[in-house]
Amino acid sequence: MKKYQLMAPGPTPVPSEVLLAMARPMIHHRTPAYDALFREIRAGLKRLVQTIQDVLTPACTGTGAMEAAVTNTLSAGDSVIVVNAGAFAQRWLAIAKAFGLKVVELEAPHGDTVAPERIAQALKANPSVRAVLVQHSESSTGVLHDVRAYAQVTRATDAILVVDAVSSLGIAELPMDAWGVDVVVSASQKGLMLPPGLGLLALSDKAWAAAKRSTLPKFYLDLTEERKYAEKNEARFTPAVSIMVGLREVLRMIDAEGLPNVFRRHTRLSRATRAGAEALGLELFPKTTPSPALTAVLAPRGVDADRVVEAFAASHDITIDGGRGPTKGKIFRIGHMGYATETDVVIALSALEQVLAELGVPVDFGAGIRGAQKVFAERS
Amino acid sequence: MKKYQLMAPGPTPVPSEVLLAMARPMIHHRTPAYDALFREIRAGLKRLVQTIQDVLTPACTGTGAMEAAVTNTLSAGDSVIVVNAGAFAQRWLAIAKAFGLKVVELEAPHGDTVAPERIAQALKANPSVRAVLVQHSESSTGVLHDVRAYAQVTRATDAILVVDAVSSLGIAELPMDAWGVDVVVSASQKGLMLPPGLGLLALSDKAWAAAKRSTLPKFYLDLTEERKYAEKNEARFTPAVSIMVGLREVLRMIDAEGLPNVFRRHTRLSRATRAGAEALGLELFPKTTPSPALTAVLAPRGVDADRVVEAFAASHDITIDGGRGPTKGKIFRIGHMGYATETDVVIALSALEQVLAELGVPVDFGAGIRGAQKVFAERS
Repeated sequence: MKKYQLMAPGPTPVPSEVLLAMARPMIHHRTPAYDALFREIRAGLKRLVQTIQDVLTPACTGTGAMEAAVTNTLSAGDSVIVVNAGAFAQRWLAIAKAFGLKVVELEAPHGDTVAPERIAQALKANPSVRAVLVQHSESSTGVLHDVRAYAQVTRATDAILVVDAVSSLGIAELPMDAWGVDVVVSASQKGLMLPPGLGLLALSDKAWAAAKRSTLPKFYLDLTEERKYAEKNEARFTPAVSIMVGLREVLRMIDAEGLPNVFRRHTRLSRATRAGAEALGLELFPKTTPSPALTAVLAPRGVDADRVVEAFAASHDITIDGGRGPTKGKIFRIGHMGYATETDVVIALSALEQVLAELGVPVDFGAGIRGAQKVFAERS
Repeated sequence: MKKYQLMAPGPTPVPSEVLLAMARPMIHHRTPAYDALFREIRAGLKRLVQTIQDVLTPACTGTGAMEAAVTNTLSAGDSVIVVNAGAFAQRWLAIAKAFGLKVVELEAPHGDTVAPERIAQALKANPSVRAVLVQHSESSTGVLHDVRAYAQVTRATDAILVVDAVSSLGIAELPMDAWGVDVVVSASQKGLMLPPGLGLLALSDKAWAAAKRSTLPKFYLDLTEERKYAEKNEARFTPAVSIMVGLREVLRMIDAEGLPNVFRRHTRLSRATRAGAEALGLELFPKTTPSPALTAVLAPRGVDADRVVEAFAASHDITIDGGRGPTKGKIFRIGHMGYATETDVVIALSALEQVLAELGVPVDFGAGIRGAQKVFAERS
C-alpha cells in the first residue's frame, strides 16, 4: 500500500472535509441556501484578497481568468508591458497576441526577476502603455516577483497593474488595496485547496475605469456584467456550484487559521524545503526571492530532472513536477501550497533522499529532513 | 424532516455514487491516472454525442460553450440566423451582438417553434448567412425544436447548424453525425447529472472548416488548440478535474443503462408528468413538441405561477422553477432530466396537488398521480 501524495505546484490536495462538503446534494443557485452561501463567500473573498472590491468568481480556470483580465480592461491595439521570466508569462504573451495587443516585453532569465526600475523606465519610454502584466508567484521557476514594488511604480502612472496571483493567493502576502494592485487574478486549485474550475478576479477602481474604455469583445467573461449581478448577490449564469460550496469551507478554514498564519505557514514550509534540499547538497533554482508556494531545485549534475519526477511517482506514488521550456530536464518542483503542512515537507524530503540514492547520487540519509527540522524547531 | 428535492430544469441532482467518486483525493492532470480517465471519457462522449469527432471539454458552463461555438466558427460582420422562441435564444442573440455578428432573427412566440421551411426560406433570402443558431430543448418554454429537420435544411447549404443541446444531451435523441448537426454545445449539469462547470463541444468537419476561416479573437476557449491537445489525449490547460472524474462515472451509468433506454426513460417521465398535470385540469405551455427534459405548465387562472414555485419550496423543500421574461408569473417548470426516475414524477405531482390546494385551487387529490401511473403501467 502506498498513500498517493499530490505535491505538484497545482492542482493541490483538497482537504477531505472540503471534498465531503462538496459531495453534499447539489443545490440550485437561485435559492436562499445559495444566497447565503454566496454572501458568505463574497465577504470571505474580500478578506482574503484584502480589498473592498467584489471578488468575482466566474466558472473557468486560471487561464480564463487571465484572459478576462485582459479582455475587460484593454482594447485591440493597446500597448502592454509583460514581465517575462517564466512559462506563465508566456501565457500573458499568448493572450496579448490573441487579442491584438502590442507588447513591450521585459525579459529576465528563468529563475530571475525584473527589477521595478526596469518597469518604471519602460513606462517612461512607452507612455501609451495601458497595463503591466505580471506573475506574482511564477510557479514555473519558483520565483516570487516583487509585486509591491511594481505597484509603487504603476500607481504613479495611468497604467494598471494586472497580477497573476494563481499560485500566490492565500499563500503569499498580497494586500490588493494597500499595495495598489489593479487586477488580482487567481483560481481555485492552488492556495485555495479546491478542485480546478473556478476563476477569481478583483478589479480596483482604476481597473474598472479602464473596463469602461475597453472595447475587446467578450460575453461569457464580461466582468462588468458579472459585477452587476454579484453586487445583487446573484449569479449571472449558472455558477460552478460544487466548487463554490467547497470555497465556503476553505474560507472558513483560512479564517480559523488566520490569514497571517496561513502566510507564515507557507513561508516556513518553503524555508524548510529549501533548507532540506540544500542540506542534501542541491542547488535551488531561484536566483532571487523564492515563492513560498513551491521549491524549484536544480537536479544534481548528470541527472535528468525528469527522472527525479518519474522516480517520485514510480517509487513513492508522489506527484511532483519537472521544468517547462528552457528548464525541462534541469529542475524539479515540489509544491507546498494550500493544504500543506510540515508532515508533507518531511514526506517530500524523505522521498527525495531515497530517489536521489536510487538514481545513483550519494546521499546522507536523513540529512535533508534534518535541515527541515531545524527550521521547524525555530520559534514560530 | 424534509428531503430536499432538486427538480429545477437544471442544475439537476447528482447521484451519490458520482458525488462520492468526485470526493476521492484530487489527482494531477498529467499522470497515468488522468490519462486513462481522459481516454475513457473521450470514447464515452463520442458514443453519447454519436459522433466520430472528439468532444471537447473546456472548463466553463453552458454559456461559455455557446460563446466558444460562435467565436470559433465565425468572424465579425458574419451573418447568422437565430431561431428565437425562448429565453436561451436571447443568449444566442446577446453573444452574436457582443461579437459583432449580423443577425437574421426568426421569431416564434414562446411555447411555439419555428418551422424548418422558414429556415430554408431565410437561408435562400440571405445567402451570406454562415450559421444557424438554435436550441434543441428550449428549457425556458419546455419545447423541443426539430433539429433533425433543421439539419436537413442546413446540410444543403454552406451554413453550419449550431445546436444548443445543454438540456437535451443524454435526454433526447440527437445523433450528431447521422443528422448532420455541425456543432453540438452542451454542459455538465443537466442530462449528465454533474455539477455545473464543464462545457462540451463537438464540431463536424464542416464546422472545423469554418473554424479555419474564423477570425474572432479567442484564447481560453480556442477549440482548434483544445482539439490538438485532446487528440494527443492531453489537457491544454488545467481541466475541471473533479467534474471529469464524475463524468467518467456518469458515462459508465449511461452505458450500463443503454443510451436508447436513457432516451426512453426521459420520454416516459415527460409523458407521465404531462399526463399528471393534464389530469389535474392544468394546461401545458408548449404548443408544439414538448421537451423530454422538463414540463412547462400554465398556472391555473388567477394563480401567479411564482406562488406555485414558492409553495413547492416552502411546503415541500422542492426546487422547481418559474417562467422567464414574457412567461414570468404565468408558467412553472418541473425538471425530470438526468438523475430522474418515476419516483421523482410521483413526488412532483403529489406536491403539485398539495400546492394547488394550498393556493385555493380545487384539487381531486391523487388524480395527477393516477394520470402518471397510467403512463407508467403501459408496456415500456
